[in-house]
Amino acid sequence: MSEPDFKYFSRFRNQLFHIVFGTDTRSGKLFDIVLLWAIVLSVISVMLESVSSIREAYDDVFFVTEWLFTVLFTVEYLLRLFITAKPKKYAFSFFGIIDLLATLPTYITLFVAGGSYLVVIRSIRLLRIFRILKLGRYLREASVLSDALAASRYKIFVFLGAVFTLAMIMGTLMYMIEGGESGFTSIPRSIYWAIVTITTVGYGDIAPQTVLGQAFASMLMLMGYAIIAVPTGIVTSEIASAEKNKRKEESAGRVCAACGIKGHDKDAIFCKNCSAKL
Amino acid sequence: MSEPDFKYFSRFRNQLFHIVFGTDTRSGKLFDIVLLWAIVLSVISVMLESVSSIREAYDDVFFVTEWLFTVLFTVEYLLRLFITAKPKKYAFSFFGIIDLLATLPTYITLFVAGGSYLVVIRSIRLLRIFRILKLGRYLREASVLSDALAASRYKIFVFLGAVFTLAMIMGTLMYMIEGGESGFTSIPRSIYWAIVTITTVGYGDIAPQTVLGQAFASMLMLMGYAIIAVPTGIVTSEIASAEKNKRKEESAGRVCAACGIKGHDKDAIFCKNCSAKL
Amino acid sequence: MSEPDFKYFSRFRNQLFHIVFGTDTRSGKLFDIVLLWAIVLSVISVMLESVSSIREAYDDVFFVTEWLFTVLFTVEYLLRLFITAKPKKYAFSFFGIIDLLATLPTYITLFVAGGSYLVVIRSIRLLRIFRILKLGRYLREASVLSDALAASRYKIFVFLGAVFTLAMIMGTLMYMIEGGESGFTSIPRSIYWAIVTITTVGYGDIAPQTVLGQAFASMLMLMGYAIIAVPTGIVTSEIASAEKNKRKEESAGRVCAACGIKGHDKDAIFCKNCSAKL
Amino acid sequence: MSEPDFKYFSRFRNQLFHIVFGTDTRSGKLFDIVLLWAIVLSVISVMLESVSSIREAYDDVFFVTEWLFTVLFTVEYLLRLFITAKPKKYAFSFFGIIDLLATLPTYITLFVAGGSYLVVIRSIRLLRIFRILKLGRYLREASVLSDALAASRYKIFVFLGAVFTLAMIMGTLMYMIEGGESGFTSIPRSIYWAIVTITTVGYGDIAPQTVLGQAFASMLMLMGYAIIAVPTGIVTSEIASAEKNKRKEESAGRVCAACGIKGHDKDAIFCKNCSAKL
Repeated sequence: MSEPDFKYFSRFRNQLFHIVFGTDTRSGKLFDIVLLWAIVLSVISVMLESVSSIREAYDDVFFVTEWLFTVLFTVEYLLRLFITAKPKKYAFSFFGIIDLLATLPTYITLFVAGGSYLVVIRSIRLLRIFRILKLGRYLREASVLSDALAASRYKIFVFLGAVFTLAMIMGTLMYMIEGGESGFTSIPRSIYWAIVTITTVGYGDIAPQTVLGQAFASMLMLMGYAIIAVPTGIVTSEIASAEKNKRKEESAGRVCAACGIKGHDKDAIFCKNCSAKL
Repeated sequence: MSEPDFKYFSRFRNQLFHIVFGTDTRSGKLFDIVLLWAIVLSVISVMLESVSSIREAYDDVFFVTEWLFTVLFTVEYLLRLFITAKPKKYAFSFFGIIDLLATLPTYITLFVAGGSYLVVIRSIRLLRIFRILKLGRYLREASVLSDALAASRYKIFVFLGAVFTLAMIMGTLMYMIEGGESGFTSIPRSIYWAIVTITTVGYGDIAPQTVLGQAFASMLMLMGYAIIAVPTGIVTSEIASAEKNKRKEESAGRVCAACGIKGHDKDAIFCKNCSAKL
Repeated sequence: MSEPDFKYFSRFRNQLFHIVFGTDTRSGKLFDIVLLWAIVLSVISVMLESVSSIREAYDDVFFVTEWLFTVLFTVEYLLRLFITAKPKKYAFSFFGIIDLLATLPTYITLFVAGGSYLVVIRSIRLLRIFRILKLGRYLREASVLSDALAASRYKIFVFLGAVFTLAMIMGTLMYMIEGGESGFTSIPRSIYWAIVTITTVGYGDIAPQTVLGQAFASMLMLMGYAIIAVPTGIVTSEIASAEKNKRKEESAGRVCAACGIKGHDKDAIFCKNCSAKL
Repeated sequence: MSEPDFKYFSRFRNQLFHIVFGTDTRSGKLFDIVLLWAIVLSVISVMLESVSSIREAYDDVFFVTEWLFTVLFTVEYLLRLFITAKPKKYAFSFFGIIDLLATLPTYITLFVAGGSYLVVIRSIRLLRIFRILKLGRYLREASVLSDALAASRYKIFVFLGAVFTLAMIMGTLMYMIEGGESGFTSIPRSIYWAIVTITTVGYGDIAPQTVLGQAFASMLMLMGYAIIAVPTGIVTSEIASAEKNKRKEESAGRVCAACGIKGHDKDAIFCKNCSAKL
């Protein structure tokens, strides 16, 4: 490639980059919106295909649609890999992996039947929507939420470990009490029932019939009712402190260009030290 | 209209305004109470009409009652439009739209059958009750609640987006695991089941039967149990800060007439600066 | 009655008062414990009586037991009325009314059959147990809880009003969507279903079958899931501030006898101003 | 035993102690990991044995496995008792009792049939896992959680007492309303239903059919929905203050070796007073 050619090519690649990865320009926004609709349509098409009456009537349509979207998303994925400056970093990023996984299921159906439903993984790509709608605001909130969850992960593990141990013991006791009757046919099934009960889901497909079993179940329910307070308490106190940290960070991040003073309020317009505009 | 006529008319209109829109005068309160009972009766009449055994016995009564209330509410709506100084503002206000919608369903039944049940929209009008019972106190609390919800709307959207994506993926996986058995007949139905499970509602009309399905369902329940902590944590921290802001606002709003100092306590009787009565 | 007689009588009445109402003396504690066991036995006897197989076998026993406990509690009630200094105040206090109601149901059965089950109201008397077990500590916590609930009662009313209006509208919509099928046979029943769903109870006796109905139900569940955060948030922030107030009150209540300074820490042993022992 | 023999023996015992109780050395970690796997396998084996189809096919295998693990755990328990310096303290510690209970069930089956399922108590031993995985971090969080639960135990008891009393009264009322129909066959069963409803579990095996019953049930659900906020609020405010105390304690625990000043930040590297390395 001669140098001017390369220059043109580089400029073209740069423009493409802004369209595919950016959301600031008009064409960049349009690209993202078209992409989101394509994802929505492909996911809906997979869902409708699973309804047997619809599948029988429009079998061919679904076959064509599926391959069309798959080719489209494959081209898009290769394009992204090609135009980004750091293909490796993209390929191993969260969205890079999701973008790849979103194309694979249809190819898998060439070898294994039934894999096409995995296409639903495409729905994760819809989270891109937050990049278009007032990007920053949503990202900020998502980061507060994920900070809070990350900070409480140890407590949550301890908590889930304790709940699961409780479910195992109560499930086994109920199996011994109900004696294989009214759905408690094995210990794993009884543990499944105990989890259904502690989490207050309560399907009712398995339910105690003996008086002793109902007394035990009542105890378990009251425990579950009180226990649910624990993760809530954990996450609440973490969200409160994550929110506080975020605000501190934001105000610390605002530095006056004139005098270098930090720590301005989030809504401050002038520097509180030298009155220069921020 | 001659001028004295107009004057009398204007005074009459003013009096009517205080009766219809106000709650301070005796007649204004009476009007509101009569109106609330009319709304309650009309809503109850629609509900009873839906019970087939009652409908068959008192068919005529319901027909008469419905038209009676509809004419009454139509007259009331036109009256409100007529006596308010800014008819446009009222017509497009929250209660203005609800007042209009409350009259329409019965007219719709002239053209389309079955629309009469929409009359239930009248129940929203019952929220007027808070205007009568110690108005200010309830409005204050409602405003704290709605401020907190408004402040947490971005976090709630991010959260609901994540929950719905999780429900789609888990629903599809369960459809593949249970293989169209025990109620998981299509992906949309399986997603419905996943939402029923994550939110801990747990009807039990669809419930996993296979061991693998029950293991997956248990995981989903524990996730739902931990996830419910997130909106709670969000709203709790927002309510706490909305309550704080409200109190700050209230004390900031109290200005001493004598010396102009702000920031008096909510229950202060004298100015803390110059001891003048507030 | 001669004066010395009256004196003896007054002393006797005073001793009785300490036994019946007090929990400090040995005999006062014993009286309360015997009473609690009598209450527990009488409530258990009513419950067992409701089990038809047991009732048929021991019909006479239940009849005798019931009248025995009723006479016992009647005597106790009259005794309390007689020995307290202010009978009127006791009669209209919370426990005074409960004590009376606890004796009435059996007398009612002389005139109306079936009233005997109302005896269960005696179980409220069991709350006296908190008077025996480390009285103060429990009363303190109960007062924090009831302060928090009292402070949030306006917000809770606004909230329940909004939830009930939502249930009415969604119930009516579901009645129109499901068209009298799958349990949605009338609007009141559909509203019952809507409440079962919003509160995440989810019996499953009524459940949507149509696709549109399931989509609406999913929406309602997600709303219920997010809405449950609201009362939690309200009560949490109120409990936090009730707890704070209680602590402030407690430390304000500690006054140094030597110098009169207030506001000592709850666990302080010496006055922080003059070092006198508190 | 001659003195050098005793010395060798003492050293050997010391080494064994580090392997069995410690997690710092390589062999100590290996011992714990092998032990955890043995526990997991023995618990899984008991669960599979409860599934009738599997039990019939591999009856002998389960018999051998169970005795193998039991002998193994018995040896381990005796070893622990033997090598620890204070056998009594270990025997009455939480894990000491669990370790003993984990061995007993199989011996019990020699005398009483069916006791073998109690082996599930071994699953509590799995909590040892937190000792291996980044021990300190998890212990810290567990201590925050248990501090919060301990601090709120009085409030939780008051709360559970109130909920249980409510369930008894509402259960009895529903028994009277539904009149022995639709599952409400006795007061204890109706109380079981009331607990299922208040805790929002909602199996649906018992559900009201009469209009009055459904109205009452709706009321109970809304109460349960509002009531669940109470334990959450209690635990949340306790977790927040337990977390605060923990942090204060941690920073108070850091004392500068050079100047003796306390209260350094958790992540401080140098003393804030004399700049000595902490």
